[in-house]
Amino acid sequence: MSSPSIPFSRIGQWAEPPVISEVMKVALENKHLLSLAAGFTDTEALPVKAVRDISVALATSGKPPQYLQYGTTLGRPGLRKFVSKRLSQFDQHQSPDYHPDHVMLTNGSQQALYLAMQVLCDPGDILLVESPSYFVFLELLKGLGIEAVGIPINEDDELDSKGLISLLEDMKAKGMDKRVKGIYLESWFSNPSTRCLTNEKKAEVAHILRDAGLMIPILEDGAYQELYFEEPFPSTSVFAIDAFDAFPRLFFGTFTKSFATGLKAGFAICDHPELLSKMASVKGHHDFGSSNYSQAIIEHAIEQGDYDAQLKRGRKRYQLKMEVLHRTLVEEELQKMGWSWQKPDGGLYLWLKGPEGLDTSMDGAFFENAVKEGVLYVPGNLCFAPGVPKNYTRLSYGVLEADDLVKAGKRLAKVIRQFN
Amino acid sequence: MSSPSIPFSRIGQWAEPPVISEVMKVALENKHLLSLAAGFTDTEALPVKAVRDISVALATSGKPPQYLQYGTTLGRPGLRKFVSKRLSQFDQHQSPDYHPDHVMLTNGSQQALYLAMQVLCDPGDILLVESPSYFVFLELLKGLGIEAVGIPINEDDELDSKGLISLLEDMKAKGMDKRVKGIYLESWFSNPSTRCLTNEKKAEVAHILRDAGLMIPILEDGAYQELYFEEPFPSTSVFAIDAFDAFPRLFFGTFTKSFATGLKAGFAICDHPELLSKMASVKGHHDFGSSNYSQAIIEHAIEQGDYDAQLKRGRKRYQLKMEVLHRTLVEEELQKMGWSWQKPDGGLYLWLKGPEGLDTSMDGAFFENAVKEGVLYVPGNLCFAPGVPKNYTRLSYGVLEADDLVKAGKRLAKVIRQFN
Repeated sequence: MSSPSIPFSRIGQWAEPPVISEVMKVALENKHLLSLAAGFTDTEALPVKAVRDISVALATSGKPPQYLQYGTTLGRPGLRKFVSKRLSQFDQHQSPDYHPDHVMLTNGSQQALYLAMQVLCDPGDILLVESPSYFVFLELLKGLGIEAVGIPINEDDELDSKGLISLLEDMKAKGMDKRVKGIYLESWFSNPSTRCLTNEKKAEVAHILRDAGLMIPILEDGAYQELYFEEPFPSTSVFAIDAFDAFPRLFFGTFTKSFATGLKAGFAICDHPELLSKMASVKGHHDFGSSNYSQAIIEHAIEQGDYDAQLKRGRKRYQLKMEVLHRTLVEEELQKMGWSWQKPDGGLYLWLKGPEGLDTSMDGAFFENAVKEGVLYVPGNLCFAPGVPKNYTRLSYGVLEADDLVKAGKRLAKVIRQFN
Repeated sequence: MSSPSIPFSRIGQWAEPPVISEVMKVALENKHLLSLAAGFTDTEALPVKAVRDISVALATSGKPPQYLQYGTTLGRPGLRKFVSKRLSQFDQHQSPDYHPDHVMLTNGSQQALYLAMQVLCDPGDILLVESPSYFVFLELLKGLGIEAVGIPINEDDELDSKGLISLLEDMKAKGMDKRVKGIYLESWFSNPSTRCLTNEKKAEVAHILRDAGLMIPILEDGAYQELYFEEPFPSTSVFAIDAFDAFPRLFFGTFTKSFATGLKAGFAICDHPELLSKMASVKGHHDFGSSNYSQAIIEHAIEQGDYDAQLKRGRKRYQLKMEVLHRTLVEEELQKMGWSWQKPDGGLYLWLKGPEGLDTSMDGAFFENAVKEGVLYVPGNLCFAPGVPKNYTRLSYGVLEADDLVKAGKRLAKVIRQFN
């Protein structure tokens, strides 16, 4: 056992255990806890049979078992074709931008986000993010020494165009604009806010950026794009919005969330060949290609319709679960106690806004009492770039079954009453 | 289609497509080529049936399908236990250093190497490597702006202790020693040289480093440790060598090479908790955990003996393939033409040394003629830190069947005769 002190690199010094692991540790130490924290997906509904059948089909196809051999860094051509076709269909738009050559498969979309940040940003650079934004991504930025600057929101918790204009003017005045290397948008049922962005809103952002002289890469995260409940949110990806034509565009997606998280397969699609090529080169250094077997399973699942069947099943179950948790919180009269939230049309989260001044962060008495009462959530402050309101709470209904969702909702309401 | 110019980060600027992709492109453009280049494994012998049976067993176990759900960043506890147990058994040594808590599962051992380099080295730092060394790793270093410095070799192509001493003295005199952040050793059937390191040789290295005041992390790569032909090379990992007790130690291994490359599962084991924790934090940013399904399959394969059965089969087949290629080259009288190589006792490569002055690099006439004659190899110069002899050639016999190995060997001999 050796532990001489090591002079770590800057990345080594910046590396901190993810905050969610602190939250999860609390969960593990308190077995009676019901967790509305982690964004896990529905274990009961996982596509066990489809994955088994595909595994058998792959093994008995009579073809050489390439699926158990190394693949390429970019990933299986067949699955990349599906990525390109599906996004083009979703967008109801055709363009060479969707070409399979522009697709790279990754270890979940998370790796694609990491690669993009590595090749775009040096430490000290700035990325514009929504308020709130995906907290694991915010930690990723911190780990690379990148500064996240939050786009202001208006009273309706919507992205505030005027606020963005003044933010950019302000940054320009301070000479910070040169350091802005991209903008990150979660356009569908955002984690955590479940906010969607209309094409109009996105085009507005494009015009504001252009007017500010910031022709920066647009990073659009579509992790929850397919996880709507009844119908897709009526918008397209940035690839189908003219206002973005002069910007480098990256779209991030995942098969992990919507099919089986254990397969860990995501992708990026990029219309700027040099950017994608650089990301691929760095992926070559990370791992020279993701699991070929996982990719083969998903490729076959899409081909045979299992993937869409699973999506359909997932949508129903998540809607049901959302309704259960939502109704519980309504019946517990949270609104009367100054809490509010939008009932979402997709995604995995309820994003609760508590009364002004309430502190739901991990250090506060509210979190402590929640643990005491046996319910766990993600403190909303983790989801903001510095600026940080502390009165938000992210609840995930993905993994608990209906009974437990009711119980968990009631426990949370009890804590809220204690602080009312 | 947009292509405004992007001001890439330093990592973005350093990112270059891997040289092997250039070699492979040549292969793809010349379908008649027989490739002794890529280190692919034996497609015919892949564990198709075992993987299928395990997939079915997982699906029908009656347990909740956790294997299709997110895992943890460190990976499946059961598989981490196997890693710890197997290395301890290989070393015939017991110590808390092998504890499963010290194990992290990764996307192939490549990702573990990348993570170690990220947390240990800033751009401009130095890593000591063998001469020759694993060329994909050398590219990884270049991509992170890390300088690889090769340890001198003696006339027998062995690591030269005296040369290492003078190298370190020289670096100290130049003030470079502060930048040395680790040493990378491939101790078993090294890629590309198939060299093994004895415990005595490794202990010697430890003493030299200690005497030079360099208590730097030891990175030992055991990718081919289990891929011996008849018996293991009689040495242990650095965890079982006292001389390394005061050094931070990292051992890298893989299930990918020895079982099924398509599953992409490797690991690191580390006796320095802070180092491992920082690597895990960065892995949290890369992907917060590798494919749970791949890990579950390997865990079961080890549990049920399929993994060891596959290893046994692989060893036999690789030995046979090696013998075929080796014999062909002997019969073609390469030695008489000034070529030499060690017949290996494991691994996937023949490492050929050509006559002094010969240039086998990609820009040379030799490579061009080889392509013309229909045979591909990895030019040895890619495997050296700057310094670079150009008369080596790496041949991989992993993927071709015996007939093609004979053909490929004869084609190479023809080229060699042209340059004799």
